Amino acid sequence: MSKVFVFGHQNPDSDAIGSSYAYAYLARQAHGLDAEVVALGEPNEETAFALNYFGVEAPRVVTSAKAEGVDTVILTDHNEFQQSISDIKEVEVMGVVDHHRVANFETANPLFMRLEPVGSASSIVYRMYKENGVEVPKEIAGLMLSGLISDTLLLKSPTTHATDSQVAKELAELAGVDLEEYGLELLKAGTNLASKSAEELIDIDAKTFELNGNNVRVAQVNTVDINDVLARQEEIEAAIEASSQANGYSDFVLMITDILNSNSEILAIGSNMDKVEAAFNFKLDNNHAFLEGAVSRKKQVVPQLTESFNA
Amino acid sequence: MSKVFVFGHQNPDSDAIGSSYAYAYLARQAHGLDAEVVALGEPNEETAFALNYFGVEAPRVVTSAKAEGVDTVILTDHNEFQQSISDIKEVEVMGVVDHHRVANFETANPLFMRLEPVGSASSIVYRMYKENGVEVPKEIAGLMLSGLISDTLLLKSPTTHATDSQVAKELAELAGVDLEEYGLELLKAGTNLASKSAEELIDIDAKTFELNGNNVRVAQVNTVDINDVLARQEEIEAAIEASSQANGYSDFVLMITDILNSNSEILAIGSNMDKVEAAFNFKLDNNHAFLEGAVSRKKQVVPQLTESFNA
Repeated sequence: MSKVFVFGHQNPDSDAIGSSYAYAYLARQAHGLDAEVVALGEPNEETAFALNYFGVEAPRVVTSAKAEGVDTVILTDHNEFQQSISDIKEVEVMGVVDHHRVANFETANPLFMRLEPVGSASSIVYRMYKENGVEVPKEIAGLMLSGLISDTLLLKSPTTHATDSQVAKELAELAGVDLEEYGLELLKAGTNLASKSAEELIDIDAKTFELNGNNVRVAQVNTVDINDVLARQEEIEAAIEASSQANGYSDFVLMITDILNSNSEILAIGSNMDKVEAAFNFKLDNNHAFLEGAVSRKKQVVPQLTESFNA
Repeated sequence: MSKVFVFGHQNPDSDAIGSSYAYAYLARQAHGLDAEVVALGEPNEETAFALNYFGVEAPRVVTSAKAEGVDTVILTDHNEFQQSISDIKEVEVMGVVDHHRVANFETANPLFMRLEPVGSASSIVYRMYKENGVEVPKEIAGLMLSGLISDTLLLKSPTTHATDSQVAKELAELAGVDLEEYGLELLKAGTNLASKSAEELIDIDAKTFELNGNNVRVAQVNTVDINDVLARQEEIEAAIEASSQANGYSDFVLMITDILNSNSEILAIGSNMDKVEAAFNFKLDNNHAFLEGAVSRKKQVVPQLTESFNA
């Protein structure tokens, strides 16, 4: 049987790594697949903290499946091709486990897809362990828990599903950690931005969306103090402009998210700022504006941008 | 709570009707949704036989969700927008249960998707009944069984999944029928083509696929004697040409499938016959050619056409 790659999206976050690592194990145990977890990038600091905490090595980074002799892939935590492996259109997508909208996704053949509108892809993978009666190893419970905490900001984001708190409780028990304590430690590990260059900062957690023909980059950084990040506005803007020019982004929207108070400052630069302002019903002042209560790119930023760009 | 429409694809077949009828019941029982099954067309003769056999009224036919005051829909047995309700782009797709490839499908928000590469959408819905611990009423078991038999030609098509025979066995027991006997009766009910005009015949089970910018119509009829259908070639070709002109199809591929011997004759007319011939490695003679062992549009025709049109 030929090898199958399992991976999350580019610029992997804790849910991309956690859900793919966990799913690859499940696919080996329950479905007898020769499944190998790989990643489309190095772990960020938050994910590195989780991997280190649970004693798991980071999945090796690949940029092409074909170059590794692999023709079949399983995607977790994403489905849009522009967020996936470079040669996604040349390989067979055998399965998808995800909790995002579906777009720019197409296959030639029927496949397994398991999508649910819940807080993390890890929540779904955990459910699949239960359905298949596969015991969850402690470190895998820890990685899935980290994915869920990361994506929901410790169950505070509006993307949190009613079923997620029970999932978090069960995973914390399996992982042998206190949910609140570990959760805050994990999130704080991701807010260490001082050591990052502006170029790195805007790429920690960034995704591209095609909105009515425009390539819109939406990035997010977590912090415990928004002003710490705004103090670096000048160098961040220079990095954004360089990145947009190099990659052909029409617009770049950076969410600077305060994980303690659950708000975001939006820093936005590009050709469609009228559409960005209309999306959030605010006025940018010196390229930024406060977005009260906004912590979720998926629920509080991308749909609003999509609607505004299509208007 | 507002009403949710559940429906299968246009030109509904037994699996489209069976899976949507069964899923709407499950959504009411297990998820508390105000779900109504509707259909995007009248049942064909095979499906009418199944509905009549199990004493179920055909779902009412709708062409628009918005016109009925419905904003939220669940799709079964399809996902491609051009096979769905006319205003699919203006409503919220809450869920999809399907066993086809994914294409021309996009949402603004996360959703439930449950896709498996199995013989019928009904097979998946039946699994969901079990997962949710919902008892299957006799007539619903009968409709799901009919969907599975229809789509797999009584478990003989290569689309049949290893798990499908067990599903068929269990559903036949729940429905109180003998699998083989009922199955053959059902399939034969769909081969009564003599009463159909050529226009009706080419539209019994037809789907449009966008292949490299071409609108390709792929239709299928079941028969117990291919020659009976070929005897009407002239009027069928006239109907195909009229339909292609009216609907902008670049090509029309009709599978005339012998359900007893599991073969098909392909009758094809259009602008890309070189691509059709390359797809199946045959030469059309007087617009038709024999395709040994081919009974599945999904597995033995559409992927081959897709590859050939993209070459």
